[in-house]
Amino acid sequence: MAGISLRRARTIIRKALEHGKAEGMKPLSAVVLDAGGHVIAFEREDGASPGRFQIAQGKAYGCIMLGIAGTAQMKRAEAQAYFIAAAGAAYGGQMIPVPGGVLVRDAKGAVLGAVGVTGDSSENDAAAAKAGIDAVGLTAEI
Amino acid sequence: MAGISLRRARTIIRKALEHGKAEGMKPLSAVVLDAGGHVIAFEREDGASPGRFQIAQGKAYGCIMLGIAGTAQMKRAEAQAYFIAAAGAAYGGQMIPVPGGVLVRDAKGAVLGAVGVTGDSSENDAAAAKAGIDAVGLTAEI
Amino acid sequence: MAGISLRRARTIIRKALEHGKAEGMKPLSAVVLDAGGHVIAFEREDGASPGRFQIAQGKAYGCIMLGIAGTAQMKRAEAQAYFIAAAGAAYGGQMIPVPGGVLVRDAKGAVLGAVGVTGDSSENDAAAAKAGIDAVGLTAEI
Amino acid sequence: MAGISLRRARTIIRKALEHGKAEGMKPLSAVVLDAGGHVIAFEREDGASPGRFQIAQGKAYGCIMLGIAGTAQMKRAEAQAYFIAAAGAAYGGQMIPVPGGVLVRDAKGAVLGAVGVTGDSSENDAAAAKAGIDAVGLTAEI
Repeated sequence: MAGISLRRARTIIRKALEHGKAEGMKPLSAVVLDAGGHVIAFEREDGASPGRFQIAQGKAYGCIMLGIAGTAQMKRAEAQAYFIAAAGAAYGGQMIPVPGGVLVRDAKGAVLGAVGVTGDSSENDAAAAKAGIDAVGLTAEI
Repeated sequence: MAGISLRRARTIIRKALEHGKAEGMKPLSAVVLDAGGHVIAFEREDGASPGRFQIAQGKAYGCIMLGIAGTAQMKRAEAQAYFIAAAGAAYGGQMIPVPGGVLVRDAKGAVLGAVGVTGDSSENDAAAAKAGIDAVGLTAEI
Repeated sequence: MAGISLRRARTIIRKALEHGKAEGMKPLSAVVLDAGGHVIAFEREDGASPGRFQIAQGKAYGCIMLGIAGTAQMKRAEAQAYFIAAAGAAYGGQMIPVPGGVLVRDAKGAVLGAVGVTGDSSENDAAAAKAGIDAVGLTAEI
Repeated sequence: MAGISLRRARTIIRKALEHGKAEGMKPLSAVVLDAGGHVIAFEREDGASPGRFQIAQGKAYGCIMLGIAGTAQMKRAEAQAYFIAAAGAAYGGQMIPVPGGVLVRDAKGAVLGAVGVTGDSSENDAAAAKAGIDAVGLTAEI
């Protein structure tokens, strides 16, 4: 499987952070995970709070492990909070079920990885992640 | 790096506990964390229940990691319980999202650390933390 | 059971830290636990590394849970490392089996709590803990 | 608070990875942590195994928490394995006590953060970390 190269991951992160700055968002943090849920790259902007890695990683990790993007996870959490809580526990607490966790798909729809962005509103976080993924010609499922 | 010195942390705790006594509160416990979320000092008053360190630490730790004080965490928990539950799990269970967790800022607004107080009502806990922080001339975000 | 009051815990910590300064030790951190292994008070001197609470707490917690002081824990670890590793795991990783973890006994030999000191050599840490315990007229088992 | 900026963290990582390539090392991964042990940036080179974040992070995190660099941690582990094992457990398993964990100090000796590199031999990992830190004019304690 052709995955997300480090070169592409860097571009995704850089473009996501630039999107946030251009839109006047708070300092963002962004992670790129591979198709197995493992970290390829992460960056936290100056001025972001210390614990942003865990939130970014949890947003992206839940996407990979369940195969469901952040917006759909949030809907499930609102309908059935105990399921999402139980899944989070089953994944060792590494699941943040809100927008900003975004699946990365290739042209055929295969999951190549996931991006997690945190720092502003969940919707803005997701938009920044999508901007990064768009910039490398892949498909974002927010 | 200018942080909260042990001398100042002692004063914050002493003044928080004195505030509680002066106001007729139950026995309080108070912790001061540095800007990375690590414990500088803690005290538990005689008569407090044994597990007060974890509550005080969790109140303050969540403030540091998310950059959000206890009152705002509580509001978020009431609006979106599953997000706060998930963040708590991502931080290893060390997050108590109620008032009494208070950010400590310097005159320029930079986060120097956090204080966590527990033992009475959450609102009283926060007032005691603020009294301690006021006493050393720093800014409390409750 | 008459335990260690907060007033006494403060004195133990203050005298332990003063002992370290008088002897030219590195910045110390000191914790006092009650007879149930729960934190009464902790202080970390300026210049100590961030993770000193966990080490101090682990030294004292192992003393309480096993009823064996740090020096004897170290001897057991040297003779039978797997036992000490297994006990540490059983106690959730909160056991640091070296000197500096000191049992606090009353005149009749009853355990009132434990002190954990860290920052210099293990032997110096234990001497500082003993200095603090001596200062309040209790008996230190190092 | 003067810490390691994201700009500097990027340079440290880039130069560490370039050093590895120039020296013919295996694919490297590198993390930069702030003075509180929190992740600023991380990159994993193409061809590295999936679990490299945890190793890089653990190398750097132990440096921060204990205030002791990887080489000295390894010596302590060889002299007193049970102490290092216990400290690792006290830090939630996030401590890899070998070279490649490197403290970052400023001109006055203050700890600004830590770098963790993994992928080749521990000694080569440490050399790559040092190359990155040298490139930004800070001091590496390997």
